[in-house]
Parts: sequence; C-alpha cells; structure tokens
Amino acid sequence: MNKKIFLLGSTGSIGVSTLDVVRQHPENFSISCLVVNRNIDLLAQQVTEFRPSAAVIYDDNASCVFRDRYDFPEVNIFTGKTGLGQALEYCESDVFLNAFVGFAGLEPTVRAVEMGIDIAIANKETLVVAGKLITELAEEKGVNLLPVDSEHSAIWQCLLGENSLSVTRIILTASGGPFREWPQEKLNGVTPEQALKHPNWKMGAKITIDSATLMNKGLEVIEAYWLYPVTEKQIEVVVHPQSIIHSMVEFSDHSIKAQLGIPDMRIPIQYALTFPERLPLDVAPMNFYEQGALTFEQPDFERFPCLKLAFDVLEKGGTYPAVLNAANEIAVDAFLNEKIRFTQIPQIVADTLDGHQSTEVTGVEMLFELDREIREQVEKSIRLKQK
Amino acid sequence: MNKKIFLLGSTGSIGVSTLDVVRQHPENFSISCLVVNRNIDLLAQQVTEFRPSAAVIYDDNASCVFRDRYDFPEVNIFTGKTGLGQALEYCESDVFLNAFVGFAGLEPTVRAVEMGIDIAIANKETLVVAGKLITELAEEKGVNLLPVDSEHSAIWQCLLGENSLSVTRIILTASGGPFREWPQEKLNGVTPEQALKHPNWKMGAKITIDSATLMNKGLEVIEAYWLYPVTEKQIEVVVHPQSIIHSMVEFSDHSIKAQLGIPDMRIPIQYALTFPERLPLDVAPMNFYEQGALTFEQPDFERFPCLKLAFDVLEKGGTYPAVLNAANEIAVDAFLNEKIRFTQIPQIVADTLDGHQSTEVTGVEMLFELDREIREQVEKSIRLKQK
Repeated sequence: MNKKIFLLGSTGSIGVSTLDVVRQHPENFSISCLVVNRNIDLLAQQVTEFRPSAAVIYDDNASCVFRDRYDFPEVNIFTGKTGLGQALEYCESDVFLNAFVGFAGLEPTVRAVEMGIDIAIANKETLVVAGKLITELAEEKGVNLLPVDSEHSAIWQCLLGENSLSVTRIILTASGGPFREWPQEKLNGVTPEQALKHPNWKMGAKITIDSATLMNKGLEVIEAYWLYPVTEKQIEVVVHPQSIIHSMVEFSDHSIKAQLGIPDMRIPIQYALTFPERLPLDVAPMNFYEQGALTFEQPDFERFPCLKLAFDVLEKGGTYPAVLNAANEIAVDAFLNEKIRFTQIPQIVADTLDGHQSTEVTGVEMLFELDREIREQVEKSIRLKQK
Repeated sequence: MNKKIFLLGSTGSIGVSTLDVVRQHPENFSISCLVVNRNIDLLAQQVTEFRPSAAVIYDDNASCVFRDRYDFPEVNIFTGKTGLGQALEYCESDVFLNAFVGFAGLEPTVRAVEMGIDIAIANKETLVVAGKLITELAEEKGVNLLPVDSEHSAIWQCLLGENSLSVTRIILTASGGPFREWPQEKLNGVTPEQALKHPNWKMGAKITIDSATLMNKGLEVIEAYWLYPVTEKQIEVVVHPQSIIHSMVEFSDHSIKAQLGIPDMRIPIQYALTFPERLPLDVAPMNFYEQGALTFEQPDFERFPCLKLAFDVLEKGGTYPAVLNAANEIAVDAFLNEKIRFTQIPQIVADTLDGHQSTEVTGVEMLFELDREIREQVEKSIRLKQK
C-alpha cells in the first residue's frame, strides 16, 4: 500500500494525529499537500518533515508572511480557496482527508468528490448540511466516503462483511461530556473554560463545545444516517462515559457488534487510510484487567436539547439540518467569546429552526447562500440580545 | 436458505435451543435426524413436531422401549453408534450439529466430516482432544467448522471480513462462575448443588461444573486455538461477570471488535446455521439504558487451576489435551456423584497429567484407546482414595 494523502487542516488535532500515522508508516503513506488556515509556523515544521509537493494557506495575510519567512523551493505554495482548487489539480492524491472544522469543509469536499478522489471524512458538518448531495455525488463519481470520526469508524468496522439488510440498529455511544451529571440550574453558569475540558478526548474548541452540549452527538446521528443503511428511528444514542466502546451495530438476530479501544484518534484515522486492511499502530493497548467498569445511561434531552434538535431536523429533512448547523456554529462561537451563556446555544438553535421555512436542497450553491443568511441572522439576533 | 439439520443431542440444552431456532424459521430450516442418548419421551415430542426422516437412540434399552411405546411409520429409527452411521447415510443433511457432551462427541464428528457435511460444533471436547486431526480432515474434505459456543461465535463474527494476518489477540470472556468471589478455603466445601447454579447461563450439568472450575474456559482456549489464526500466547482470558460481551478480537492497529448481547444460546446457534447471512430471531433485545456496569477482572489461576492446566497442555501439545479432557470428565462425574470434593477436580487432572508420557497424536483410534485408559486409571485412583 502506498497512498498519497491530501490533508486539509493539518495543524488541527486530527491533522496532527494523521501526520503521526503517516510518520509511523513512511513506506505506506506520504503527503501530497498540506492545507492550513493560518498556523504557518507549524505548517513550516510539517513541510520540513513530510515534504509535500504543495501546501495551501487559506488566509491571505498568513500566506504572504509564510512566503517571506520560509523558503521551500520544492514545495508549491497556494493561497486561499482558489489555491485549494489549484493544489487539487496540481497534486496527485489517492485520498483527501478533510479535517476542516464546520461548514467550511463542505466546498473542499465537493471539489475533491468531483475530481473522483476518495474522501476520508473527519468534517461531519459536510454530511450534516449536504448529506444527500454528497452521498449521491460520491456514488456517481465512484468515490468512497471513508469515515474518520471514532463512532462512524466503529460502525464501519462492525459492518465489515455483513449484509446491510441485516442491520436493525446503530448504537452511537456518547461520553456525555463534562456536564453529564450537572443539574439543569448549574448549566446556566458554565464557562468556556469548563466546557473546553473534555473528559476523554483532546480535540479542537468547536467540537469540544459541541461535545459538552451533545450537539456533536446530534451531528453524528445525522452523519450516521447518511453513511449507513438505517432510518432515523434505527439510530440510538447511549451515554457511555468511559468512551471505550466507540459505537455498536445490532443485527436482525439481536447479535450486537462493537468496536472498542482506548480513545485515540490515530486508530480510526489509520483505519480510514488502510481499509479494508489494517497496519500495526503504535498506541497504548487496551488492558481489560485494569479497565474499570463500562457504564451506560440514557441521554437527557431536557438538559441537552441539542441532541433532540438534531433528531428533529433529521426527521424533518430539507434545509433544516443546514440551518441547525449554521445557527450552532455561530452560537458556539458566541459562547466561546462570552457573548452568550452555555444554555443559550440550544435556545438560539431552536429559535432559528422555528423561524425557518424549509425547502428542498437542490444544489450546493443554495446551501452556501442559506448558510450565509442564517449566520447573519443569528449574529444579528445575538447582538440585539446583548444590548 | 433451506438447510437440513442432523441434530446430535436434541434433548439437551443446546438441542432444545436449536429446535426453537428451527421452529422460528420453518421456511429456512428442517430436521433430517434427531439423535438422543435415552430421553425417549422428549424425543417422541420432538419427532411429532419436527418430522425428521430419521432418529437415532444411542441407548439399546431406550431404543427398544421407544419402538414399543411409539409409532412413527414415516420415521426411520436407528440404534446405537452403528445406527448413527446408518442414519448419516440414510438422511440427506446440509449441516451436522454436534451438541453431544464430552469425548463421546468425537466419533460422530469424525464420521460427519468424512462424509463432507459441514459441522456446527457445540461439542468443544472434540477439538480439545483432536483439534489437529479434525481441522486437517475438515480442510481435506472441504468441510466448514461452524462454532456454536457463544465465545467462539463472537470471535467468528468479529473476524468476518477481516484479514486473519491482522489478528493480534483473542480475548475470551469468562463469567467466572458461581465461585468467582469465594476464598480458596471455602472452595473445599462446594456442593454439586452450589456448583450447578451458573450465574448467567442455563446449561447441562457437565459444562456447568466446568464453568465453576473454569475448566470450561480452558477447553474454550484450546478450541479457539484450533479454530482461529492465533498462537497460545495470543489468547487471553478476561473474567467478565455479566456475560454480555461474549468475546473479542484485537487487531494489529489495537482496534478491538466485540460481539455482545443478552446471554441466549439461540443467537450463536442460529448464526452457525445462517452464516454468513443473518435471519431475524425472536429473543429479548439488549437494552443498554437498563444494563448495569460491565466489569472485567483477571482470572485467578490459584483458585481456579484448571484454566492454568488447559493453557499448559495447549503449550505442551501431543496427547496432553486428550488426557486433561478424559481426567476432567471422570473427575466432574465423581464430583457430581459426591465421590470427591470440588477442589479435587483440578488435583486429579494435574496428577493424571503429571503421570502421563505424551506422544504425537497420529490418528483417532489411538485417542479412543488413550481416552479409555485414562478414564480407567482415574476411576481406579478415585476408588482407592475413597477407601
């Protein structure tokens, strides 16, 4: 196996883990292109180590500074969204690993799918807002959608060799986040600092807040719906605070398969790159003798309404999921900037959904416009509330 | 799917469960032959319901009584071991489900493999004493060995679609039996009644005592060795008192797959019959919201030396596993008949192994003779101890 990886978001948590996987298997993986937003110093280190044929810096200013500060004569440096398209044309790539955060991941995914490159998908928002479009386009272009999220990787591994008609239930596990045991009244006073402390996983800020509100699990429910052969009624969320069982699949004979292990994103990342084979990976092994109890709870829709909202928009369909996502991105950002309280995140999302008239999703362009509109609307409403 | 099942041991726990699976799928399964030792009244009920083309009664007297008492003009009744061979020739069968207990299961398995019929194997002793012979013969004859034990079924399900070269560890779970938490000194006084109360599974007497001594798990370790692509060092036993996770497989990337569900033998039995497909099965579904904690412990070789003995004989090979099995069968029988204490079971097995000079297993005949010899020797030593 020798795969050339086009890595979108190389300086984030998933990007850094991906590069460690590549580092462990220089004979099997190489990097064709590294894409970052503006973390140019880390990019320079990564370029030095992995010698891609290209790099893309989304931010114009950062790109200029990079060109001033560093000199990599063998690496073609591109800038911005246009540069991404150029880099995709310029580099030969076997897999496009999208580890961008949020709606920003949609456009690059569409481009890569159109070019027929397999997508390792860590950007769940892409499937949340455009699940139907992307899965249909991928099928048309013969592109594999390779899940990177630990939950979706777990489901994928459990489905290996199974007949999809036998699947009766997908059981998505959720850590429950840092506030799993907090009473409703205390959630009002949650600070960004508290919400950024995930009990089991080290991740970026946006996904960590989404994990605290359980919106992350909601987005994963929608993602699972598009990736796997189930209806929304067949997706169940189980709170499993230890994050050892990464998710499960139940079959028609009531046999359940689970994938488990220590929480380490390098395992699902590598699996997305090696599927259907496996390669050794130097991570801590699971020691069951020392492992404490594995426990399970029902998620609480009252204290964590975001999860309920996600199930609702999945059932309603149309543009609702895209609206949920846009409102949530703005609300999370506002919370991180201390403009709103933690419990206002689900309120804002719910209010935005209430005010929305859904239509059919007919193309990507309308999603870009809708996303822009909803963001403006939510930002405005947050500004008004602050006055 | 329409499979004709030759069912050996139809009135035992596995047999009765198998017939319930058949009852749930009259369009997919039928019974070609029912084989019992002497429970003729239950056999008569089963014949009435499942209308096999033949039945075999091992016990001569019971066979005579059956012919006197019942009249099934459309069912050919055979007697004894010879009758089993005749029935195998007479009936057309797609799968031979061997649910006999102990060494007695070996000969029928050999016959069925030689006839090229797939074997659903619930009789683990067959593979313990003759693993090499049976697996080689099965390969030669193109016969599939379909595991029925819940643990081996779990491993099999986890391996589906995987490359066997990626397997690094098999994790066999064990309930730990009814004496898991008993101190050493209390084990001396265990009564058959206490040992027959398994915490999670309803099974026959012999396997229930083997579960209490952990010899059952030891036999399963040896069975797993012959069924799956691992060395003895790659088989790990983890005590998991809830019996929800039925076993696990670890791969080279430290990803672990598990099969789980409520403890109900109908699930693995049906899977052995439908593999690689699945069919619906009316059993209680797993409810994670109500499931208590799943816990894991290291097995205690001091209090449960049978498990250690099984690992030892697997490593030593030759005729040792057959000797362990024969000595254990006699010791368990003696314990059930209150001739020896619970803690004497491992002692007797260990002493018998110590006095044995191992040789290579060259054929089935030598195993029959060895089994006879060891049984006589152990019975004699138990008689002498009682005086």
